[in-house]
Amino acid sequence: MKGSAEIICVGSELLLGDITNTNAQFLAQALAQLGIPHYYQTVVGDNPLRIQRAVAIACDRARLLIFTGGLGPTPDDLTHETLADFFGSPLEERPEIWADIQQKYARRGREVAPSNRKQALLPQGAAVLPNPGGSAPGIIWEPRPGLVVMTFPGVPKEMQMMWRETAVPYLQTEGWAAEPIYSRTLKFWGIGESNLAEQVTHLFDLENPTVAPYASQGTAKLRISARAANEAAAAALITPIADEILKIAGEHHYGDDDETLATAAGALLLQKGQTLAVAESCTGGGLGQMLTAVPGSSAYFMGGIISYDNAVKIGLLGVQPNDLATEGAVSDPVACQMAAGVRARLGTDWGIGITGIAGPGGSTDDKPVGLVYIGIAGPDRSVVSHRFQFGNFRGRDWIRHLSCCTALDLLRRSLQTS
Amino acid sequence: MKGSAEIICVGSELLLGDITNTNAQFLAQALAQLGIPHYYQTVVGDNPLRIQRAVAIACDRARLLIFTGGLGPTPDDLTHETLADFFGSPLEERPEIWADIQQKYARRGREVAPSNRKQALLPQGAAVLPNPGGSAPGIIWEPRPGLVVMTFPGVPKEMQMMWRETAVPYLQTEGWAAEPIYSRTLKFWGIGESNLAEQVTHLFDLENPTVAPYASQGTAKLRISARAANEAAAAALITPIADEILKIAGEHHYGDDDETLATAAGALLLQKGQTLAVAESCTGGGLGQMLTAVPGSSAYFMGGIISYDNAVKIGLLGVQPNDLATEGAVSDPVACQMAAGVRARLGTDWGIGITGIAGPGGSTDDKPVGLVYIGIAGPDRSVVSHRFQFGNFRGRDWIRHLSCCTALDLLRRSLQTS
Repeated sequence: MKGSAEIICVGSELLLGDITNTNAQFLAQALAQLGIPHYYQTVVGDNPLRIQRAVAIACDRARLLIFTGGLGPTPDDLTHETLADFFGSPLEERPEIWADIQQKYARRGREVAPSNRKQALLPQGAAVLPNPGGSAPGIIWEPRPGLVVMTFPGVPKEMQMMWRETAVPYLQTEGWAAEPIYSRTLKFWGIGESNLAEQVTHLFDLENPTVAPYASQGTAKLRISARAANEAAAAALITPIADEILKIAGEHHYGDDDETLATAAGALLLQKGQTLAVAESCTGGGLGQMLTAVPGSSAYFMGGIISYDNAVKIGLLGVQPNDLATEGAVSDPVACQMAAGVRARLGTDWGIGITGIAGPGGSTDDKPVGLVYIGIAGPDRSVVSHRFQFGNFRGRDWIRHLSCCTALDLLRRSLQTS
Repeated sequence: MKGSAEIICVGSELLLGDITNTNAQFLAQALAQLGIPHYYQTVVGDNPLRIQRAVAIACDRARLLIFTGGLGPTPDDLTHETLADFFGSPLEERPEIWADIQQKYARRGREVAPSNRKQALLPQGAAVLPNPGGSAPGIIWEPRPGLVVMTFPGVPKEMQMMWRETAVPYLQTEGWAAEPIYSRTLKFWGIGESNLAEQVTHLFDLENPTVAPYASQGTAKLRISARAANEAAAAALITPIADEILKIAGEHHYGDDDETLATAAGALLLQKGQTLAVAESCTGGGLGQMLTAVPGSSAYFMGGIISYDNAVKIGLLGVQPNDLATEGAVSDPVACQMAAGVRARLGTDWGIGITGIAGPGGSTDDKPVGLVYIGIAGPDRSVVSHRFQFGNFRGRDWIRHLSCCTALDLLRRSLQTS
């Protein structure tokens, strides 16, 4: 391990708040995975003097400076020029880069602008960090002994590809990466982060692996992270802890890492060879969208009916007008009839019906914003409805999101016990 | 205007890449709106020595230090403690804060932990920056003449409320805010950012207002920003430029600022008193979700049919089995029949049908990933289908997103000319 890294993101659009700094998050995660320590991030605008000051500070506290942004063709793209100035190494044109840029534009049938030629200018002594996804290459450069500078464009996709394809192998080969951190994140629905955390507090003092609670988008997470020489050694540290957690809170666990509620339910449907249809009112298609975000979901998801208007609930789903009139659209019988109706109409094994008040309007005294009924109709022709009060302080988007996720979780639990 | 601000975000979770630094973006935008210059952002972990070093650097280059994070009850929440140390002003307990914390917990029926008492410790001389949304208050403090320190919790909602309710009035009253920046963002669909920018390059050299191109989520944007004493003065600067842009590229313009393709189409439907239904295959409900994300959309959106499986296209939408067999599900006649079918089935004025190959699987030689047909059926019973090749390099999520947005834009254009 040669030293710590600092991430320096260059761009006035960051200082104006026009964009979120997702590049810093990507690089932070990537450095943690490589086991390269990283104590500071700096954001600075497109101003050569201020960029130079940031570089001077970073040189004092880090040995690996990772820049994003400022590699474009416009006059305010100044990263390479400023680094060349700061380290006293003139810019020089790299003919192979200029040829490459011209070729890339020609291939897309676009004319190359004279300003693009600027992107072929790199500091003397710097190696090219190729950019297969765009015109601006970065550099890997050791301007002083023991100090390495890497530059990436600000476009996240280009930066990420360059990081994976060139920077990671370089850092590993050159001995920057320490014992890497491997992690497994257990994901839970139907239990709050603090409630979950309280049940496993005894694990939070572990040192290797460590266990840490997180939450995002309503999912409670426990991340188990181990430093180890390789993946197998990490798994040997992580697995017993994961097993212990699952003994405690396994019923709420729907998957790990990249798994989602939709992939979890989908995998169970696939395994059982069963099919699904959805009837959505307040979620307006969001549940179908989550289900079909999974490639291959056509094997078990047949489709659905968005019954936003009551006439559609009656006409296409067979909801009883009488129940709509007496119980209201947001009610237990309507959720059940929607679920059973879409199951029958589309001839599937399972049917889900969602009806609720997403707000901000549409509430009554006994039916506040955030009230949602979810019906689940199963292969045995049973229909169960569940009532949720997601809270009127949460806002429309969040209530709709919780409704879709909860429906998927209910389906998962039904599939596991059926 | 008293000087420039620096944003200092404290939290090891930022250095590990566990969360995106949306606080920095919010504050950056907020500072721009107040006209307070801001040249650097720093991210530092939960480490007192490193926080002190970051403070020392920030004192050299800014007069207003804005901290987020590190105000919680746990031992690694160190912001106030570290600031007290750095400026040589001891922490003291504020009884009124401790009382407030105990009350807040009691109101939620939760027990207050002894560790929460730590949150009542503030540096001597610092004023309390109240936190109506959570337990941890922040501070407004002038530890040295001409240097102001503000602290906020890391929880975005709490921080934002505290910013709006207390920090903004303070900064305005105390003379930090300069002539504020007002802006209007024109949003376009169906034209690329660079293509749009080329048509208005002559405006990019303006100084007040300025014009800058952006793009996000497929929408091309032009932001016109003016420094002015008040909103009316800003509008007088911005409107003539906006009008000039709209003369050039108005056909692609769907709205401003917070308007979306769904609100734009919805406003036109509402204005004409017309209704809409959707039939979705590859988007699986995403178009319905976008439409119903708009509160009040039930006035014009009746619902739809998610015809993921061909049997649903035939059974519920009346798509001809023969056309499915000979032309395939992703074809001009099927898109048209889906649009007309859902319009007829739900008895609406307009119908939209989307069928495409979102990938990664399902492509053939003549039907690559990214091929999407969108049918629009109108009140005059006309049906038109549009063919798009969104490109197979874009990935499933992006192709589905572009499909939904393009469908809304086609509807908007149809409504404008019908």
